[in-house]
Amino acid sequence: MNLFPSKKRLAHIIYESDDRASKNFDLVLLILIFMSVTVVILDSVEEIHRDYGRFLYGLEWFFTLVFTVEYFLRIWLSNDKPGYIFGFYGLVDFLAILPSYLSLFLFQTQYLTVIRALRFLRILRILKLPHYIREASALKSALKNSQTKIQIFVGSVLTIVLIMGSVMYIIEGPESGFTSIPRSMYWAIVTLTTVGYGDIAPSTSLGQFVAALIMLLGYAIIAIPTGIVSSEMTAARFDKKNARQKDLYFCPNCGLHVHNSDAEYCRKCGTKLEPLNP
Amino acid sequence: MNLFPSKKRLAHIIYESDDRASKNFDLVLLILIFMSVTVVILDSVEEIHRDYGRFLYGLEWFFTLVFTVEYFLRIWLSNDKPGYIFGFYGLVDFLAILPSYLSLFLFQTQYLTVIRALRFLRILRILKLPHYIREASALKSALKNSQTKIQIFVGSVLTIVLIMGSVMYIIEGPESGFTSIPRSMYWAIVTLTTVGYGDIAPSTSLGQFVAALIMLLGYAIIAIPTGIVSSEMTAARFDKKNARQKDLYFCPNCGLHVHNSDAEYCRKCGTKLEPLNP
Amino acid sequence: MNLFPSKKRLAHIIYESDDRASKNFDLVLLILIFMSVTVVILDSVEEIHRDYGRFLYGLEWFFTLVFTVEYFLRIWLSNDKPGYIFGFYGLVDFLAILPSYLSLFLFQTQYLTVIRALRFLRILRILKLPHYIREASALKSALKNSQTKIQIFVGSVLTIVLIMGSVMYIIEGPESGFTSIPRSMYWAIVTLTTVGYGDIAPSTSLGQFVAALIMLLGYAIIAIPTGIVSSEMTAARFDKKNARQKDLYFCPNCGLHVHNSDAEYCRKCGTKLEPLNP
Amino acid sequence: MNLFPSKKRLAHIIYESDDRASKNFDLVLLILIFMSVTVVILDSVEEIHRDYGRFLYGLEWFFTLVFTVEYFLRIWLSNDKPGYIFGFYGLVDFLAILPSYLSLFLFQTQYLTVIRALRFLRILRILKLPHYIREASALKSALKNSQTKIQIFVGSVLTIVLIMGSVMYIIEGPESGFTSIPRSMYWAIVTLTTVGYGDIAPSTSLGQFVAALIMLLGYAIIAIPTGIVSSEMTAARFDKKNARQKDLYFCPNCGLHVHNSDAEYCRKCGTKLEPLNP
Repeated sequence: MNLFPSKKRLAHIIYESDDRASKNFDLVLLILIFMSVTVVILDSVEEIHRDYGRFLYGLEWFFTLVFTVEYFLRIWLSNDKPGYIFGFYGLVDFLAILPSYLSLFLFQTQYLTVIRALRFLRILRILKLPHYIREASALKSALKNSQTKIQIFVGSVLTIVLIMGSVMYIIEGPESGFTSIPRSMYWAIVTLTTVGYGDIAPSTSLGQFVAALIMLLGYAIIAIPTGIVSSEMTAARFDKKNARQKDLYFCPNCGLHVHNSDAEYCRKCGTKLEPLNP
Repeated sequence: MNLFPSKKRLAHIIYESDDRASKNFDLVLLILIFMSVTVVILDSVEEIHRDYGRFLYGLEWFFTLVFTVEYFLRIWLSNDKPGYIFGFYGLVDFLAILPSYLSLFLFQTQYLTVIRALRFLRILRILKLPHYIREASALKSALKNSQTKIQIFVGSVLTIVLIMGSVMYIIEGPESGFTSIPRSMYWAIVTLTTVGYGDIAPSTSLGQFVAALIMLLGYAIIAIPTGIVSSEMTAARFDKKNARQKDLYFCPNCGLHVHNSDAEYCRKCGTKLEPLNP
Repeated sequence: MNLFPSKKRLAHIIYESDDRASKNFDLVLLILIFMSVTVVILDSVEEIHRDYGRFLYGLEWFFTLVFTVEYFLRIWLSNDKPGYIFGFYGLVDFLAILPSYLSLFLFQTQYLTVIRALRFLRILRILKLPHYIREASALKSALKNSQTKIQIFVGSVLTIVLIMGSVMYIIEGPESGFTSIPRSMYWAIVTLTTVGYGDIAPSTSLGQFVAALIMLLGYAIIAIPTGIVSSEMTAARFDKKNARQKDLYFCPNCGLHVHNSDAEYCRKCGTKLEPLNP
Repeated sequence: MNLFPSKKRLAHIIYESDDRASKNFDLVLLILIFMSVTVVILDSVEEIHRDYGRFLYGLEWFFTLVFTVEYFLRIWLSNDKPGYIFGFYGLVDFLAILPSYLSLFLFQTQYLTVIRALRFLRILRILKLPHYIREASALKSALKNSQTKIQIFVGSVLTIVLIMGSVMYIIEGPESGFTSIPRSMYWAIVTLTTVGYGDIAPSTSLGQFVAALIMLLGYAIIAIPTGIVSSEMTAARFDKKNARQKDLYFCPNCGLHVHNSDAEYCRKCGTKLEPLNP
């Protein structure tokens, strides 16, 4: 309980989360992140900015300085400095302080500090919930399985958007808001995704006919990503179910291999197998 | 058939639904609830309020007094008074009369009496339909199974809304309606959920480009809750199917355990097993 | 080939579709239905009505008279007169001629003659496609299986619409278009279904916050009907698949019973089993 | 490495993609297609057209001439001339140059040259990715399997759109934008697909009530294409899974036949079976 802990002890407090000091550090950090994001949001509301702008500006710089100190502490204490700096968490930590300094030179960039919200992901590491990690792995493997389908889907959507946008630009023209092909493509995306702002809408009969065709097409197309996700999730759900019924384990990492009931590590990728809740 | 029934008989009439008197009581109650909600809705229409306002005001207080008497009767007749008062049905009964009394002090709260519609849930208890209870249990267990997925989903949506809202606030600014980050976040939710009112819409080229990205993202994201529900329902559907084909029973409460064909109670949670319709 | 066929021959021509005369009759009928619907649609366009109104009015009455003669012929020729008149096809045939006669007394009802489009359903009877009948039976049995889920779903949606509509009426008031609870409920449906016209939209901060909650709720709720349909269709798909793999037949009527490979009629409901395409 | 390759060598360069010269040719072609589409898009933006219009016009004709030369080269070098000209790729190649020449006579058709984007499909042939071909075959077979369901679905949607459009035309009339039945049908499609521009919206109480019914119907109907795609994809997913688990092969062409583990060609349609990635 000395006031200046050793470097090793400090590294433990900052990087781990298994005793009182390190848990408190993580808790304080999460509260600071939450308050910092709240300050940025509040400051953007004109009425609040008018009355409390100076106070919030001060608070924001206080949080930025605290996070800056923490960032350099993490670099200093890390055993694998480049691994931290260029890793996911290191980049998020860096991006969380960058906008404040940029705002000294560039207008309004201080609002980008909301990217600090990404630091909440640290909760996952702190809580170390196997549930979340398993689900995330399942999602990752589902995405990997349906990669080709997704590529075909995105390619088709972009082609439809390009061609339909051009056709509507020719049919409707600038009078209805279709002032250029890029803007018509924006309209096509607004329509295909069924968002439908109505800021740009066809006004000629032919334009409305073509727009109706695009909508019915969008109706069919929206079924495709849903179908991909549903089928992958159903498949994953049955894997889990089968594994449970047969007392077998399902590897959260490589996903497709069935393990013997006494297996503790995946025989393919070596991932520790979590026992499924009974 | 005496005019003043005993306390025990009165409790039976109010709490049960298995003979003529108690069934009639429930029926009258449902009709009163329906009429009471209708009165509130009609009273909000200006033309009707102008012509029949006084009459509807009187009716509303009549229903409130009847429900108040019923509420205190239920407390008086209940064997487990705190259990009723703080239970689900007791709270709904209390909330159903509260707004009328509040409206004496607070403006317009009388419209909150539409919460009386929740009292219709009593129908489930009156009809005691095993179908509904089984489906509701299945839905509850499906939600429990996909709890982690839903948490990850809600967290991701809120993070996207926060960051995208801030980005659009910087890009578009107050001219297009993006007057603050909270309002930009409202816009981001309107866009991600494909509602798309168009009250706030991007007008710059860069803003429309970013908005198009958000829409395509929303397209992908909307597939996730659908996929979760579809996979859980498909799994539940197959459980039911398998149980039927193999003459086995499926527990509506804990869901995942297969029972022997002669089982009458779940061997795990003791729930009475409903025989499946053949 | 005599000009005045016998009553029996005429009944065959009108009710059957298995030789040249009866096939031609059906074909002519379908063309008349299509032309009749087209005439009504064209007549509603002001420019066309101005120039060709009289001509189209004449055509419409010509079609109406032809369909009226056909209707009374069908009654006269039918063996089971009440069965035809109050059956599905008889009612559609009656509704197809009613609006024209009503239009003599009521303004604009002639446009309701588009209900003639329902007569196209006759195509199904003419073509007698076993595919369509099987799919329609599958859809019917899927709907029956998920009846309880659909009832719970519709009940929940209406309750949410009622309560949220009232809440928004109190929060927003007439300034933003929420002029009454029914109109607020209309807004709630527009929002929950993600249609989002924007004719009524919240303008206060609190209203936008509550609206955002409703949207996220609608996001989750839209997953439910999709999940119901997906799971039923997946189950039906696997039934068909299993039946095919095991050389067993699947009854298109009662759906859930597996038949022996040599079965020609469903052992439960007696429906003729269509051999599945190999 | 002579400057004028033989006709056979030229055909190889243009039609194949297996050595350096032919790969370079394909790469250059893809870059030209991409640049050509970009030029058309940029030229439609008024600010860019004002400043660089002449330059972009020149570029566009340069690309058109290159593609024209390529088109005639392909015809000259093809062994099966009519097969190329009337085949899919030949038609796309022809449509890719047609709009430029048409624009000499017809206004604005030059923007239709964005159809050149379809030439990107050539990438599939160049890369010859078995993944894509397998997924595309799976999609094709899924569409074929659900053909009847899709026909019933499209028929129902069009009937609902026709009848609801007419009903709303009678209820609302020209004041709210329902100026004709075709325009009301456009509104019905905008509403059913949940796009909801708001350019046409009901303003009477009865109209809003009917519109709310259409929206709730659309809510249910949107579930159907999603359900069709989900069930087909789930079925395909399980086929693949089963094939993998049992060391059996699944034919990417006819889809439904299970093959022995030593099969190299589909015993039904003769398609070469790709070994599944382990």
